Amino acid sequence: MNSLKAKTAKESLTINTEVVMPNDTNHLGNLFGGKLLQWMDITAAIAAQRHCKRVVVTATVNNVSFENPIKQNSVVTLEAKVSRAFTSSMEVFIDVFVENPVTGEQIKCNEAIFTFVAVDQNGAPLPVPPLTPETELEKKRFDGALRRRQLSLILAGRMKPHDATELKALFV
Amino acid sequence: MNSLKAKTAKESLTINTEVVMPNDTNHLGNLFGGKLLQWMDITAAIAAQRHCKRVVVTATVNNVSFENPIKQNSVVTLEAKVSRAFTSSMEVFIDVFVENPVTGEQIKCNEAIFTFVAVDQNGAPLPVPPLTPETELEKKRFDGALRRRQLSLILAGRMKPHDATELKALFV
Amino acid sequence: MNSLKAKTAKESLTINTEVVMPNDTNHLGNLFGGKLLQWMDITAAIAAQRHCKRVVVTATVNNVSFENPIKQNSVVTLEAKVSRAFTSSMEVFIDVFVENPVTGEQIKCNEAIFTFVAVDQNGAPLPVPPLTPETELEKKRFDGALRRRQLSLILAGRMKPHDATELKALFV
Amino acid sequence: MNSLKAKTAKESLTINTEVVMPNDTNHLGNLFGGKLLQWMDITAAIAAQRHCKRVVVTATVNNVSFENPIKQNSVVTLEAKVSRAFTSSMEVFIDVFVENPVTGEQIKCNEAIFTFVAVDQNGAPLPVPPLTPETELEKKRFDGALRRRQLSLILAGRMKPHDATELKALFV
Amino acid sequence: MNSLKAKTAKESLTINTEVVMPNDTNHLGNLFGGKLLQWMDITAAIAAQRHCKRVVVTATVNNVSFENPIKQNSVVTLEAKVSRAFTSSMEVFIDVFVENPVTGEQIKCNEAIFTFVAVDQNGAPLPVPPLTPETELEKKRFDGALRRRQLSLILAGRMKPHDATELKALFV
Amino acid sequence: MNSLKAKTAKESLTINTEVVMPNDTNHLGNLFGGKLLQWMDITAAIAAQRHCKRVVVTATVNNVSFENPIKQNSVVTLEAKVSRAFTSSMEVFIDVFVENPVTGEQIKCNEAIFTFVAVDQNGAPLPVPPLTPETELEKKRFDGALRRRQLSLILAGRMKPHDATELKALFV
Repeated sequence: MNSLKAKTAKESLTINTEVVMPNDTNHLGNLFGGKLLQWMDITAAIAAQRHCKRVVVTATVNNVSFENPIKQNSVVTLEAKVSRAFTSSMEVFIDVFVENPVTGEQIKCNEAIFTFVAVDQNGAPLPVPPLTPETELEKKRFDGALRRRQLSLILAGRMKPHDATELKALFV
Repeated sequence: MNSLKAKTAKESLTINTEVVMPNDTNHLGNLFGGKLLQWMDITAAIAAQRHCKRVVVTATVNNVSFENPIKQNSVVTLEAKVSRAFTSSMEVFIDVFVENPVTGEQIKCNEAIFTFVAVDQNGAPLPVPPLTPETELEKKRFDGALRRRQLSLILAGRMKPHDATELKALFV
Repeated sequence: MNSLKAKTAKESLTINTEVVMPNDTNHLGNLFGGKLLQWMDITAAIAAQRHCKRVVVTATVNNVSFENPIKQNSVVTLEAKVSRAFTSSMEVFIDVFVENPVTGEQIKCNEAIFTFVAVDQNGAPLPVPPLTPETELEKKRFDGALRRRQLSLILAGRMKPHDATELKALFV
Repeated sequence: MNSLKAKTAKESLTINTEVVMPNDTNHLGNLFGGKLLQWMDITAAIAAQRHCKRVVVTATVNNVSFENPIKQNSVVTLEAKVSRAFTSSMEVFIDVFVENPVTGEQIKCNEAIFTFVAVDQNGAPLPVPPLTPETELEKKRFDGALRRRQLSLILAGRMKPHDATELKALFV
Repeated sequence: MNSLKAKTAKESLTINTEVVMPNDTNHLGNLFGGKLLQWMDITAAIAAQRHCKRVVVTATVNNVSFENPIKQNSVVTLEAKVSRAFTSSMEVFIDVFVENPVTGEQIKCNEAIFTFVAVDQNGAPLPVPPLTPETELEKKRFDGALRRRQLSLILAGRMKPHDATELKALFV
Repeated sequence: MNSLKAKTAKESLTINTEVVMPNDTNHLGNLFGGKLLQWMDITAAIAAQRHCKRVVVTATVNNVSFENPIKQNSVVTLEAKVSRAFTSSMEVFIDVFVENPVTGEQIKCNEAIFTFVAVDQNGAPLPVPPLTPETELEKKRFDGALRRRQLSLILAGRMKPHDATELKALFV
């Protein structure tokens, strides 16, 4: 860790409300995955920045799945919060809700995880404050972050599966 | 599988050449992760569509990591090819190369994996042709696809780690 | 008024977080007024829609003033809430905050008022629920809404200054 | 005023012709208010700049009302002219006409008033040339500008209603 | 020709004023040729539409040359007018002027010629009104149109050079 | 010519794959000519840059004709290659293919020619390597380039028709 003062997850909460426009949709009139990924990246980057007060750059995108198609004209709300901070990187959860413009019905339709690194003017990594989870959900996400980090390192070829003790426990 | 005629990976090859514009960059003058994700999604979706001749929708984004910052005005080339087809889904690899506009130097700076599902007018899944890998690299990616699929299903809570035989073998 | 069930202002709260991109700025590197107006319109329209659960169209923009220049790369947060509902129109307040990406400093830099009308498929006006203000600020804005409405009607030539009793009281 | 040479309104005339594209429209296929506001701001800023030959920034937006919905594919013509110049600010009128792409019918559908301030490199205000109105309409708008200015100052809390002699005369 | 009532060139005059934004510029900070071509096409299409009151589609782009680089933040004015009408096609001249935002200096920096065809719902060509040139410049452009048309037909392989009597006269 | 080492046409090959989005289409749901021109310019500029390893600026657009309307959602592939190099300018051919997203049918629907000039930081022209054509088509395009160059110079008033020996031969 580092000597920076710990922060809570809610201090980084970033909310973004978007409307699905014609140019954001495919042949079937549903939101493109690529557009949603872009909104997620921007919203999550602001959350990471609010946590560390530094310029941040996207480091990884974890497994994201698109389950419910989102119709044109839908109102989409993205909520991003830092879930755990490591030496100079931060894991951010993005929860996506869709709301029908007429009925007002709100549905959680997506959940994604991005990681960001705090950098200086030359792009070199900088230390970030640790995160203290508060709610049950924040604690659960904080705990899972280590496992996901090991998975990222393995997939990037920077850790051997055998050394990923947290992750290995899942399978054995 | 299904009775559709198998296709090769190169039949789906899709190349996209982009220039990094001012609005695609962050504070440090480097390409935003979210913009690159959007380009990846569009290029990979066309590759999947070329494989199955159907409308496709993004299903998942696998672990993507952003290692080399890409400067404004850089020429970015994305090459996408289907790496394996399942019943109605296709895994697509996207290789990203960056080229300095003046020196012409080409660097492989990124590799990402997206999956797409072929759908009918109502969004219901449709069968897709199987894929026959040809080159060494295509065969290696074809083989890894099963392991990645198990990982996706586990992360989505639709498979128990214990049943993921391919993946489990990695750790034990 | 009408027989629809009254709602509170916070039920319509809509938050939008934007980053000032190169294409949003003028010669001096500051956010264009026109771009901020567009963000205000979208955010306020969603708030009005959340209040009435109907398609809404912008009816008027009240006196908006731009006092503090907003630099490129700034994070801009817009918060919109319905301040009062009339037969088929809603007045919406938009508070704009700017936050330096590095210091995290938050400054209220703008306040604007838009009105929207709820419409059916043919664009004909529909009744909307009344609004019940709760906080001190909500009550103050609710009270001022009548005066602003008279001013709008006078400026549009649909009310004589002499009949604007609320407004007239200001001057005499 | 100041010692700069007076100019006529027509020297600042700026015409902008736009087509309403799919992404500029709402659920009903009509132009968004926010998009029209953005076009108004750009067109009016060029008119102000043509008057003073300086960089200008948007200062205020006066009461704008949107009365006639504008359909997708419509051709929209914006005409902006400076209506009066004060020490370092300029009031600009924008007249908006809509023309059906097939019948060619032209309808005045909107009128808006923006004010701009001429600024130097550091954003400090600079003197602007006075305006000499010529036509009947230009004279009428020139005369009303003082009343609108008092209204802006009152709404911004920088003038007491009692001191707004021009405006007060309207009500008493 | 046809029996539709002739129109003058100035009836189709279309003026478009644009500002060169960061995303419209290249490495040297100058306007991209491709962006200027897009503005030309939109402005010229509106002029053709104003002449024939029909939906029009771009048929050809004649030799365009880009001589003076146009700097970021420049105000660019495009003026388009129909120069000659054939059975169902119209030739449109676009004159491009650049104006320094601070000095106000106006320079004619470009001239381009596009042709458009009037079409019905199914894209089939429709007759358009003839054009009657009035000024010296309009007459000169009207006369040259026939020569340019022969050149287009030759380049498209639809006329033999030998039959292009107007054009041939230039060389012999 | 110059002493730079000659290059082949395929060294500059640039492929761009685009999808026709709602905002790229006209009233009939077909791709705008202006949007296709912009894609052509970007793709061709990268090809020219790959040939000379310098910053390039668009010099001229040769006769382009739009024959087949391209429907919304179509996949458009642009292939650009340098066809001939002169002292500091390069002629680039762009072949445009359209592919139906569902049937996969590929149709050559367009062919355009742009020229670019290599420039230094101040916009002054720089020498470029000569081009050696290899295939039959490349040789045919290489040969025609001189004729097209003379035509450009004549149209720009910089060569007398009488001196355009290559071009004159076509007519006499």
